[in-house]
Amino acid sequence: MVRDPRFDILFEPVRIGPVTAPNRFYQVPHCSGMGYRYPNAEARLRGMKAEGGWGVVSTQEAEIHPTSDLTPANEARLWDDGDLPALSAVTQSIHAHGSLAAIQLVHNGLHVANRFSRMIPLAPSHVISDCLDPVQARAMDKTDIADMRRWYRNAALRAKKAGFDIVYLYAGHDMSVLQHFLSRRHNNRSDEYGGSFENRLRLFREIIDDTRDAVGDRCALAIRLAVDELLGPAGITCEGEGKDIVTALAELPDLWDVNLSGWSNDSQTARFSEEGFQEPYIRFVKSVTTKPVVGVGRYTSPDSMVRAIRQGILDFIGAARPSIADPYLPKKIEEGRIDDIRECIGCNICTSGDNTNVPMRCTQNPTIGEEWRKGWHPEIIATAEAPEPALVIGGGPAGLEAARALAQRGVDVVLAEGGGEWGGRVARECRLPGLATWGRVRDWRVGQLNVRPNAELYLHSPLSADDVLQYGIPHVAIATGARWRSDGAGRTHRQPLAFLTEGAVVSPDAILSAGADAVSADGPVVVFDDDGYYMGSVLAELLAKAGHTVTFVTPESQVSPWSQHTLEQGRVQKRLIEVGVRIVTAKALAGRTKDRLDLACIYSDRIETVDCATLVPVTARLPDETLWLELKAREAEWADAGIRTVTRLGDCLAPGIIAAAVYSGHQYARTYMEPADRDRVPFRREDIARLY
Amino acid sequence: MVRDPRFDILFEPVRIGPVTAPNRFYQVPHCSGMGYRYPNAEARLRGMKAEGGWGVVSTQEAEIHPTSDLTPANEARLWDDGDLPALSAVTQSIHAHGSLAAIQLVHNGLHVANRFSRMIPLAPSHVISDCLDPVQARAMDKTDIADMRRWYRNAALRAKKAGFDIVYLYAGHDMSVLQHFLSRRHNNRSDEYGGSFENRLRLFREIIDDTRDAVGDRCALAIRLAVDELLGPAGITCEGEGKDIVTALAELPDLWDVNLSGWSNDSQTARFSEEGFQEPYIRFVKSVTTKPVVGVGRYTSPDSMVRAIRQGILDFIGAARPSIADPYLPKKIEEGRIDDIRECIGCNICTSGDNTNVPMRCTQNPTIGEEWRKGWHPEIIATAEAPEPALVIGGGPAGLEAARALAQRGVDVVLAEGGGEWGGRVARECRLPGLATWGRVRDWRVGQLNVRPNAELYLHSPLSADDVLQYGIPHVAIATGARWRSDGAGRTHRQPLAFLTEGAVVSPDAILSAGADAVSADGPVVVFDDDGYYMGSVLAELLAKAGHTVTFVTPESQVSPWSQHTLEQGRVQKRLIEVGVRIVTAKALAGRTKDRLDLACIYSDRIETVDCATLVPVTARLPDETLWLELKAREAEWADAGIRTVTRLGDCLAPGIIAAAVYSGHQYARTYMEPADRDRVPFRREDIARLY
Repeated sequence: MVRDPRFDILFEPVRIGPVTAPNRFYQVPHCSGMGYRYPNAEARLRGMKAEGGWGVVSTQEAEIHPTSDLTPANEARLWDDGDLPALSAVTQSIHAHGSLAAIQLVHNGLHVANRFSRMIPLAPSHVISDCLDPVQARAMDKTDIADMRRWYRNAALRAKKAGFDIVYLYAGHDMSVLQHFLSRRHNNRSDEYGGSFENRLRLFREIIDDTRDAVGDRCALAIRLAVDELLGPAGITCEGEGKDIVTALAELPDLWDVNLSGWSNDSQTARFSEEGFQEPYIRFVKSVTTKPVVGVGRYTSPDSMVRAIRQGILDFIGAARPSIADPYLPKKIEEGRIDDIRECIGCNICTSGDNTNVPMRCTQNPTIGEEWRKGWHPEIIATAEAPEPALVIGGGPAGLEAARALAQRGVDVVLAEGGGEWGGRVARECRLPGLATWGRVRDWRVGQLNVRPNAELYLHSPLSADDVLQYGIPHVAIATGARWRSDGAGRTHRQPLAFLTEGAVVSPDAILSAGADAVSADGPVVVFDDDGYYMGSVLAELLAKAGHTVTFVTPESQVSPWSQHTLEQGRVQKRLIEVGVRIVTAKALAGRTKDRLDLACIYSDRIETVDCATLVPVTARLPDETLWLELKAREAEWADAGIRTVTRLGDCLAPGIIAAAVYSGHQYARTYMEPADRDRVPFRREDIARLY
Repeated sequence: MVRDPRFDILFEPVRIGPVTAPNRFYQVPHCSGMGYRYPNAEARLRGMKAEGGWGVVSTQEAEIHPTSDLTPANEARLWDDGDLPALSAVTQSIHAHGSLAAIQLVHNGLHVANRFSRMIPLAPSHVISDCLDPVQARAMDKTDIADMRRWYRNAALRAKKAGFDIVYLYAGHDMSVLQHFLSRRHNNRSDEYGGSFENRLRLFREIIDDTRDAVGDRCALAIRLAVDELLGPAGITCEGEGKDIVTALAELPDLWDVNLSGWSNDSQTARFSEEGFQEPYIRFVKSVTTKPVVGVGRYTSPDSMVRAIRQGILDFIGAARPSIADPYLPKKIEEGRIDDIRECIGCNICTSGDNTNVPMRCTQNPTIGEEWRKGWHPEIIATAEAPEPALVIGGGPAGLEAARALAQRGVDVVLAEGGGEWGGRVARECRLPGLATWGRVRDWRVGQLNVRPNAELYLHSPLSADDVLQYGIPHVAIATGARWRSDGAGRTHRQPLAFLTEGAVVSPDAILSAGADAVSADGPVVVFDDDGYYMGSVLAELLAKAGHTVTFVTPESQVSPWSQHTLEQGRVQKRLIEVGVRIVTAKALAGRTKDRLDLACIYSDRIETVDCATLVPVTARLPDETLWLELKAREAEWADAGIRTVTRLGDCLAPGIIAAAVYSGHQYARTYMEPADRDRVPFRREDIARLY
C-alpha cells in the first residue's frame, strides 16, 4: 500500500539547529523503567522506535550528578564516564535506523531524596523535598550555582561523546532545578537569582549559554518547558509566566518541547482527557518563536496530527504513549496501513512501570520491555515451522491476542467465543464511565483477525469438554476469563464473610453486564473496595451518576490507591467527591443487617455503622476454569482425541490487568509448540552485577 | 581488657547439625537493601559482621525462582547459576573470619507481584496478592507442587555450591509459600495439601526432606518459623498451631529460628516494645525440641543475653538490628569493652532502606552501607597524618559524631555546645513518648569522647564569629542544628501562610523545650502535620496524654505515612486513636480565625472548619545558620585568623533525620583535611550494568 498524500506533511524533514529530523514524528523523552539498570533493554526499546519510523527518539531524563539521585527509579544516568557505554548503545541503536537521538539532562533539585547517594538535595531556597522522605534540600550558594553550571556542561559534553544529536535542558513536571529556580513557589532568593522574573530566569539562561558553548557545534539544543502547571496564579500559566519564559528565551534553543506540569497533568489518562487536550495551553508557543515546536496529547489519529501542524500549533507530533502502544505508528502511516495502527488506549499502565521502578508494560503492546530479553519484535513473529492448528476458547483480550498472533504466525486458528460480542471484559469495561478507549484493545485485534484467511471466528459458541475432545484440534487455549467474587474474600478478608448475605449483594459482574440497573433495590449502595485499582471507583461513579446514594468504603487510606501509579489517584478521588459519593477509608467489614453495615477501623477495630441496602463488594476475582477442570480431569483422553496441549491464558489462568491478559495470549502464540522448561529463567538477564 | 567470666557462656561453641558455630552470637537473616543489585556492598557488609564476632552470619531472603520476584526490592537471588558469584563472595567474606554463613531460601508465594518477571504468583488457592498491585496468585496444582519442590532443591544445591553452611527454609512474616500452605487464612485446598493440620504441613515436610537429602551431608538445615501472628484465633498462635508445628517437626531441622509474624510485629521499634519482647511467644520452643533455638528481640545488653540462655529460652542470641548498630558487639563483649557497645536505638531507619529499595542506613552506625563503596570500617578510621586541630560547634548528633570520630583519628578537637546539655535535638526528642532509647545516640558518643585526652568538651559555650576568628583553630565545623518553621511553609504550602497568626501558634521547638506546658491556652489544639514522619504524631500523643483536646490534621491520607517504612504506621495511628486524638486526613490549611481553622480538601478544595485555640504546625525546618552566615561574610579574614576551612554539618547544612546528621558528622571527620572534588561521584559504583 502507499501513503495517502494528505499525510505527506508528516514526512517532511525538519531542521533542528545543526541537525535535521527525517520527519515530524518525535518521541519525546519518556521514562521506560529501564534506564541505567537495564541498559540492553533500554537500547533495544529506543532502537525499535527508530525502526518504526520515529524521526527523533529520546531517552528518558538523565540524572547529571549524584546530588540528583532518584534511586530506586531506573532513569538514565550521566554521573560519570562509567555511564557512557550504556548511552552509546542507545544512540547506536537509534542511529542504525537513521533517526536522531535526544537526551534530556536533568538535575532534579528538590524533587529527590538522594536515597542512594545520601547527598543533600539542592534547591533555590531551604525547602523540604517534594518526596515524602524525611529529607530537605538546601539553598544553593554561589559555589553551588557554579557547580551546577559545570555539572550541566560536563553532562552535555558526555552526551555529545555518547553520540546524541539533541541535548535537552529540562524545566518541566516540577522535577527540575531549572523549573524550581523559575518558580515563585520554590524560589525565595534575594540575590540576582531570585525575585524578579529576569532574576529567576538567570540560571536557565546561563546554562543554555553554557550548553550551546559546550556542544552547540554539533548538537541541537532543546528546551522542555512546563508552560502551565494548572495551579492558576499560584503557578506558571500559559497566559502568564509560561508565555513570558518562551518569549524571553524564544530564539535561544533550537527546539521547544512544551507541555503541562506536573506529570499527572501532562500524561492524563483517557478517563480524564481527550486526544489533543494540551493544545489550548501550548498553541501560543509558535506565535512567539521561529524555532520548531513539539508537543504531546496522546495523538494516535494521523488526521489529528496533520490538523495540529496545519493549524500552526505544532511542527513535530510529540508522543510518548502512542509510540509505546505502537512503535511502528509512523511506518504504518507511511505505508498506508492506517487500520494497522495499534492505538494507545490512554490507561497509563506504562507509567506504572516507572512509578513502581520496573520496566514498563503496555496494554496494547505486549512486546514492550521484551524486545531485548525475550527478543520480541512488536510487528514480527517468526512464522511457525510446520504449524499445528490451534483452538482458542474465549474472545476476551487474552483469547483475541492469542488468536491474532497465532494467525500472524501462519497457524490455522479457530477462535470460539461463548457470548454474542468480542472483547470479553474489555467489551464490558469500555462501557463504564471514561473507559471507552479501552475498546481499542478489542477493535484492533478483531480488525487484524478479520483479514487473516487462516483465522476462523465464531461468536455464540460456548464449548464443552466433549466439544473440545470431539474437534481434536491439537493445541487448545482456554481463555474463559474470570468473575468477581461476591463473598467479600480478598486482601483484607482472606476468607468469605458469611454475614454478607444478610442483605442484598450485587456483584461487579452484574453491573458490568446490566449497568446501574443491576442495583434494583431502593436505598443506599455501599461499594466496598478492597481491590484498590479502578473498578471500585468507576462502579461508584456509575451508580452515583445513575442517581443512587453511594458510600465508598475501603480498608485503604485513599480511593484507588494503586492508581497513583497511573497518575490518576487525585482525579479519581476528586471525581467521586464531585458526583456526591461519600468516602469512608481505613475500614474493614465487620457485620451486616438487612439495611446496615458494620465497619471496623483497621487500626483500632472500633465499629462504625453505615446505611446499606445494597452491597457491591469489589475484592478479588476467581478464574472461570470450569472447562479447564473438565478437560484436565479427562487428560487421559487427550491423545486419542488428537490433542497435544491444553493451556490456560489470561484471567482464566490468574485474574489480572488487561495488559497481563494480552501478554499472556501473546506469549502463548509465540511458544505454543515449545515445551516449557519450568526451571529456567524465561528471559535473558542483565541484572547480574559485577564483582570487583 | 578481658572478658567478664559471667559472659563466658555467650562464647561457647554450639553444634548445628553437621556444622559448629564458634559462639552464640547469631545474625539472623535480615534484609540490607543491597542483595543482588549491590553484591560487593552485601559481601562486605556480611563479612564485617563476621569480623565483629558474630558466629553465624546470614544473608537475606534469597528468591529461588522468577515466580518469586520482589523487584524493585534488592533481596538475594538464586534464580540460576548466574547468581552464584555474588553469593560465593558473601560466603568467602564470612568464612574469612571463621564464622558460619547462612542463607534463607524463599519462594514468596502470594507475597509478590512479579513486576519484573511478569510471571504469575503461586499460592495454595486462588487469591489476590498481598501487595497492592493488581495481581492475583493462582492455586498450585500437582505439577506446580512438584515444580516448587524441585525449585527448592535446586536452590539448596546452588546454596551449597556457593559455600553456605546453613540453609534455611523460611515460613515467616507471612511472606513465604510454606507459611501460606500452613495458614488456614490462605489455604482452602481440598486435596491432601489442605484442610487438616497434617495436610497443611505436608508441603513443608516434603521440602524439609528434599533439602536434607540434597545438602544435608554438609549443610545444616534451619527452619525459620512464625510462631505467632498476633492475629488471635484467625492466625497462627504460640499456644495453638505455632506450637503444633514446632512439635510436629521438632527434630527434623538442625536449628529452629522462631519469631513473630508479620515483619512489623517481629521488628517492633523501641517506641512500641522493649528488649526481649518476643520471649513470651517463643519460650515454649525449647520445651518441644532438642535442637538449638535462636530468637530475636533487640538484645543489646550482654546480661539480658546471658539471662535468656540461662533461663532456657534461647541457645543463640539472634540479632538483626543490634548487629547493624554495632557489627562488633560480640568482640566488644569478648574484650571486656561493654561501654564501647553502640546500642541499637530501635528506630528502624534500617528497615526503611529495604522498604524503599535502597541500601540501608543506621542512626547509630554511619558506616553501614559504606563498607565497600567508601571503604568505611565501623571501628577503624585511619589516623590522620599531621592532623590539624578542629573546632566543632554544636553538641547535637552531627557535632558529637564529628568530634568523636576526629578524636578517634588523633585530632585535637574542641567541642563547644551553647546550651547546658549534650545531644541537641536528640536530648530533646528522647524525652518524647516512646523515644527514650534515642538518647543512646548521645550517650555512646559522650561516653567515647570522655575517655579521649585529645578532646575538650565545653557546655554553656555559645560562640560568635568573633570568638571563632579569635581562636583561630584551623578547621571549624558548624553543627548548630535547625529549628522548626512555624509559618506553615512545607510540602503542601510552599510559601508561608499569613493567616496562621490570627490565633495562637506554638512551634514544635517550644514543645520540645518545655513539654506539653508550652501549650498554655485552654481549648482545642490542632497539630497540622505536613512532615509525614514521627514528629507530628508524637507531639499529638504528648499533648493528648497531657489532657489537651487534640485534632491531628494532615494533607496525607494517613498519620505518619513515611513510618510505614519503619514498620510503625499501623501502631502510630492506633495509638493516636487510643489516646483520643481526632484524625482528619487529606486536608490543607485554608484560613483561620482566633478559635477556628478552615481546612481545604486536597482533592476538591471544599472547606471544612475545625475548632482550634492553638495550632502546632509540623511542616519543615530551617537550618540555624546565623554563625555560618556571619563567618561566611568574613571569609576574607579566615586566613589571617589561621582558619583553613569552615564546614556546615548535619541539620545546619540541611535538616534531616538523626541518621543523616550522624552520617554528616562522620563523613566530615574522615575527610576534613581533604579538598572535596565536587564533580566526582564520591563512592565506588557497582550499579553500572553489563552490555551484551
